[in-house]
Amino acid sequence: MQKNQSQLEQFFTEYLENQVFDREPHTLYAPIDYIMALGGKRLRPLLTLMGCQMFGRPAGDALPAALAVEVFHNFSLVHDDIMDEAPLRRGMPTVHQKYNANTAILSGDAMLIEAYRFLCQSPADASLPRLMHIFNHTALEVCEGQAADMDFEKRDDVSLPEYLRMIEQKTAALIGGALALGAVIGGASEEDAAHLDAFGRNIGIAFQIQDDLLDTFGDPEKFGKKTGGDIARNKKTFLLLKALESATPALRQELMALYSETSPALESAKIERVKAVFSELQTAASAQAAKTDYQQRAFQHLAAIDAPEEGKTVVRDFANWLFSRDV
Amino acid sequence: MQKNQSQLEQFFTEYLENQVFDREPHTLYAPIDYIMALGGKRLRPLLTLMGCQMFGRPAGDALPAALAVEVFHNFSLVHDDIMDEAPLRRGMPTVHQKYNANTAILSGDAMLIEAYRFLCQSPADASLPRLMHIFNHTALEVCEGQAADMDFEKRDDVSLPEYLRMIEQKTAALIGGALALGAVIGGASEEDAAHLDAFGRNIGIAFQIQDDLLDTFGDPEKFGKKTGGDIARNKKTFLLLKALESATPALRQELMALYSETSPALESAKIERVKAVFSELQTAASAQAAKTDYQQRAFQHLAAIDAPEEGKTVVRDFANWLFSRDV
Repeated sequence: MQKNQSQLEQFFTEYLENQVFDREPHTLYAPIDYIMALGGKRLRPLLTLMGCQMFGRPAGDALPAALAVEVFHNFSLVHDDIMDEAPLRRGMPTVHQKYNANTAILSGDAMLIEAYRFLCQSPADASLPRLMHIFNHTALEVCEGQAADMDFEKRDDVSLPEYLRMIEQKTAALIGGALALGAVIGGASEEDAAHLDAFGRNIGIAFQIQDDLLDTFGDPEKFGKKTGGDIARNKKTFLLLKALESATPALRQELMALYSETSPALESAKIERVKAVFSELQTAASAQAAKTDYQQRAFQHLAAIDAPEEGKTVVRDFANWLFSRDV
Repeated sequence: MQKNQSQLEQFFTEYLENQVFDREPHTLYAPIDYIMALGGKRLRPLLTLMGCQMFGRPAGDALPAALAVEVFHNFSLVHDDIMDEAPLRRGMPTVHQKYNANTAILSGDAMLIEAYRFLCQSPADASLPRLMHIFNHTALEVCEGQAADMDFEKRDDVSLPEYLRMIEQKTAALIGGALALGAVIGGASEEDAAHLDAFGRNIGIAFQIQDDLLDTFGDPEKFGKKTGGDIARNKKTFLLLKALESATPALRQELMALYSETSPALESAKIERVKAVFSELQTAASAQAAKTDYQQRAFQHLAAIDAPEEGKTVVRDFANWLFSRDV
């Protein structure tokens, strides 16, 4: 009997709440407790649990690995927030704001080590070399994606394939890795674990494209925030890079000019004009098509896995739920 | 036939030089190549090799773990240098100076992950769970030591036992851990690995006390730099904390006043007066006695190890060489 999404959520939350992150010295560990208690959707650890039970082992066997994934994810947020000088995370002060940058660096380092420590608490009969291989490569990809993202801010010639590679590394690799870790603990073959990893990566890319779409074309009522934020901040997104790819030289030049504008007074006019250009170029439709394409590829990988239908259904339902916030 | 210190040095240096640290994206990996090429004494990886061959396996089996230790050590330097705002490392610009702080944070993160990746390249028949246990705990101790060191700068009531605990975590734990990793790869029992770890920790603490002594009382000719730097920078060292412990209330007050002085014009007079107080309190002799005590404890742990004398001799010679720069 496999657990469904809400049962797994409760299962992980209870496990998480029983962890004691804060210990001596408090200057090192209290910030870890702070960020781990800030909440968030806890999507990645659920994937680890789902990946495990899919192959017939109880989800509980994957709890330490699921926690490793969540702690790693939060480590990356703590360090990214320093680099991005972000004041808020989940509506609360970021770690470097609440404490200071040095503390955020050092507590982040300890979180990365803690993530490995939790991973090593996986059942003794799960192959630690395989788990470590997945974790190391995923973690390096996340760093590579963050490096590319920072590089892109300084470049005006980023291509769409480069962007897709960056979001695969920065966001999608961990979705895939979270599932693959669970699969290995569940006893999956190399091939099935690779399929589940590929499922996660494709879902992750589709999800990021959806995020880009929602930020510009989402219904503010449903989306919960004002649209156009990415345009206002001159952020290179799937939409912009796709538009630049398909624009005439004149339109391309206009878009580039709009995306160098930073005056708050011109913000609304700029957002309106960029959206008009996107509409003219049918950029939203292209993004929607790309998203659907990645989703389909994802589900093909899921279908190829040699596992009972019940566990796959839990994962498929979860992915469909992720995409239910549609534009 | 066991390799001696200089043979192991050459062995490790060749292995290190064959590594390719720089790959795409260069913004992430070039700084790793930079810091790893800056040199340094490479003492820690030698200990891993010595720990391995002591138990009868070839030193080559421990090369990946030795590299993991060296990469981890350099990761900690990169992040510590940001926190300490240090401009120079080994006479060259620190990573955050040469690149920028964000790059130093992110490349440091990648180095920590790379260290785990190298550790996992240890021979398949070495127990990865045991290696990971040692590495995780050592790495966390190094972070705890750095946190304590930063805390101490803001406190004026640091005790000598607190200082000794801090240097054990920040410096000595990795000396012990480097040896213990080698021991496990070499096939040591839990007990022998623990003895070798304790040997390393005691050697590490003795070495730090010697460093404190040399900074204040070293022969500038032999020591290679001006003495009194720790006093000038109001650094809490074994000497200061020992002196505060044994001083009369009046002398204690005078020392505290001297250690709040930051004027460069008064530096020489301050150094002279602090050294006079240390002499009056026989602080150097106390430090020398403490150092000898830690050394003796170290050699007792080495003697307790069930291994052929040949390998122990290599380690003992190495430790004696470390202490040959005597005051």
